[in-house]
Amino acid sequence: MNLPRTIEWVGDLPGYVRIIDQTLLPGQLEYRSCGTIYELHEAIRNLRVRGAPAIGVAAAMGVVLGMQRSVCAMDTIEPPAGAMESAEVWRRWVHETVDAPFGENLRTYGEYLKSSRPTAVNLAWAVDRVTARVQPYFGQRDAGELLRMLLDEALAIQDEDRRMCRTIGRIGASLVADGVGILTHCNAGGLATAEYGTALAVMYSAAEAGRRFQVFADETRPLLQGARLTAWELRQAGIDVTLICDSMAGQVMREGKVQLVIVGADRIARNGDTANKIGTYSVAILAKAHGIPFYVAAPSSTFDLRLASGSEIPIEERDPREITHSFGQPTAPEGVRVYNPAFDVTPAELIAGIVTEKGLIQPVAEMTIRAVLGDVTSFPSRNG
Amino acid sequence: MNLPRTIEWVGDLPGYVRIIDQTLLPGQLEYRSCGTIYELHEAIRNLRVRGAPAIGVAAAMGVVLGMQRSVCAMDTIEPPAGAMESAEVWRRWVHETVDAPFGENLRTYGEYLKSSRPTAVNLAWAVDRVTARVQPYFGQRDAGELLRMLLDEALAIQDEDRRMCRTIGRIGASLVADGVGILTHCNAGGLATAEYGTALAVMYSAAEAGRRFQVFADETRPLLQGARLTAWELRQAGIDVTLICDSMAGQVMREGKVQLVIVGADRIARNGDTANKIGTYSVAILAKAHGIPFYVAAPSSTFDLRLASGSEIPIEERDPREITHSFGQPTAPEGVRVYNPAFDVTPAELIAGIVTEKGLIQPVAEMTIRAVLGDVTSFPSRNG
Repeated sequence: MNLPRTIEWVGDLPGYVRIIDQTLLPGQLEYRSCGTIYELHEAIRNLRVRGAPAIGVAAAMGVVLGMQRSVCAMDTIEPPAGAMESAEVWRRWVHETVDAPFGENLRTYGEYLKSSRPTAVNLAWAVDRVTARVQPYFGQRDAGELLRMLLDEALAIQDEDRRMCRTIGRIGASLVADGVGILTHCNAGGLATAEYGTALAVMYSAAEAGRRFQVFADETRPLLQGARLTAWELRQAGIDVTLICDSMAGQVMREGKVQLVIVGADRIARNGDTANKIGTYSVAILAKAHGIPFYVAAPSSTFDLRLASGSEIPIEERDPREITHSFGQPTAPEGVRVYNPAFDVTPAELIAGIVTEKGLIQPVAEMTIRAVLGDVTSFPSRNG
Repeated sequence: MNLPRTIEWVGDLPGYVRIIDQTLLPGQLEYRSCGTIYELHEAIRNLRVRGAPAIGVAAAMGVVLGMQRSVCAMDTIEPPAGAMESAEVWRRWVHETVDAPFGENLRTYGEYLKSSRPTAVNLAWAVDRVTARVQPYFGQRDAGELLRMLLDEALAIQDEDRRMCRTIGRIGASLVADGVGILTHCNAGGLATAEYGTALAVMYSAAEAGRRFQVFADETRPLLQGARLTAWELRQAGIDVTLICDSMAGQVMREGKVQLVIVGADRIARNGDTANKIGTYSVAILAKAHGIPFYVAAPSSTFDLRLASGSEIPIEERDPREITHSFGQPTAPEGVRVYNPAFDVTPAELIAGIVTEKGLIQPVAEMTIRAVLGDVTSFPSRNG
């Protein structure tokens, strides 16, 4: 199966991060090299790399990019022109910290990376994890050794993510009966993870098991991840996909074309309330109204057990121009007020089950979540 | 209140039709003159003039454009280059009929106009109405007199539509409590009618009555009538409007920002099932899930009492490029399969009431529809 190489660490130390620039898909498949933490921050913030697990891997590698600058005595690199907002953030966070102690820099870079996208918990989780890996060795190992540990940990996150995705796919494939129609929203595919995806991993596994099915991909306004990424990825993999507008999901369900909904997640509270791309909540309500089971597929790192419910999940609000200037052109009256939340929260009672690499959580409730996920002390909550 | 002049008959006989080219809004407010039935057909088919009532007025005037060509002995006018599909339709329908008898031409032109948009019942209704106006006088009056009757009837439809819209607005305004949030989908405004609109007429009337409220306008993919037209029109009229993507309606409802939904209609079956722009059905389900009343505002000409239920309403499927090539640019993978229904049907049980110029239909059922609409023999059904 032809799956994209979403994100790679290239070289050793110092090295760089190579990502597929997802803002150019499906028109161009172009790779982008990020040699500095700034470039990586910009790539996350502007959705060149997106999807909670992929952002986690990127952020972990971003910490390495930040630290290798002083540790490997690289030249100071100015942020590229034309992205001044991020550049100012960069200066505020980073300018005076190049010569600070390892631990202080690590914290600064980590906070800087966390500021790039506030909702995705994997980002903070990955930053905290690489940080926690080296913290016990401050003062005992030299900076070069600590940097090596950071990179190894980032690569371990990536490798675990690959394996997690494959396991999610294998577990979720049992939900896909032969001949069904599956609806998905946004992109929870190989492009959103280290490889293989979460919601789409389920489809890839089912296809590998010889099952035939048809996928309806919501285009996912405003940024069209469904049209640009999911439709592209599924076609690359040879899976039967039909593109629809978000507003057509209800009609497609009413016509009996969909028997299963699977989406990814950006953050899941401990009661199972799930934050995902804006529009997911509407799809869940529509699915319920049509008696169609609505599943979430997400690695255990997506759970934020510090949060009692979805109401505690911060919802990122994004630039109005994403709606008013679609594809570069003005498509709304000059100056019109816009509301542009990037995510919504689907309450647990609308979710038939959550497919994780540790098993299927069903029904979705705090007790079953804790039972399936196991030792909660190994979860992001410990770093909270 | 600053309301657009959507469609006008200019001059006497022969005259022409002037429309606002709505495909250029909100960037440009440009008027387009249609001197031939072909140009008017093209304008309807390509949504330069759209909205069921406005299409009705346009089609009635289109019949006059067709008939004045032979009656007023105008030169044969070739369809403009660059629109060959419609041009072929034009030749198929019209080429050999210039010298045919008045009644035969009238039928041919009427059928041709009806082929421009299959779902909107007002189109067929208006064509049938002007036809029925002159039919009794074939052989008794000369062609010039019959043509004059056609024009008078078309202008009467326009005038009735204006008055109907104002009455709908007045009746519906009572639904708008002070301080509410109102969600609407697509454009059922002055641009969709002769003037004033249906769903938006309710808002204009409520605003005139001094009520304050906030409107959330779904952008309405794929053609963005909400972003381009509704947001534009409401801002022109000084009404507080916030633009959202279709996928955000559920979130806005969940946040308690909406207490009322009002939309227009393209066709209503005699049990109250309502065809309207794709996505309306989803909005109705979301409204129900949040306990928000969902209203339809439409003139009585929108009812098609020949149809027992919404399942009999034909749903127009439109060009996949509306989804894959948004605003001229490819935004989906080359060759991807697309499903693009232009309408969906909202079942009567999801509709709290239908505001017509004859009164508020509530609850929505065949009995109440017949009671409010009165003499059913005056309805499109008689022509069915």
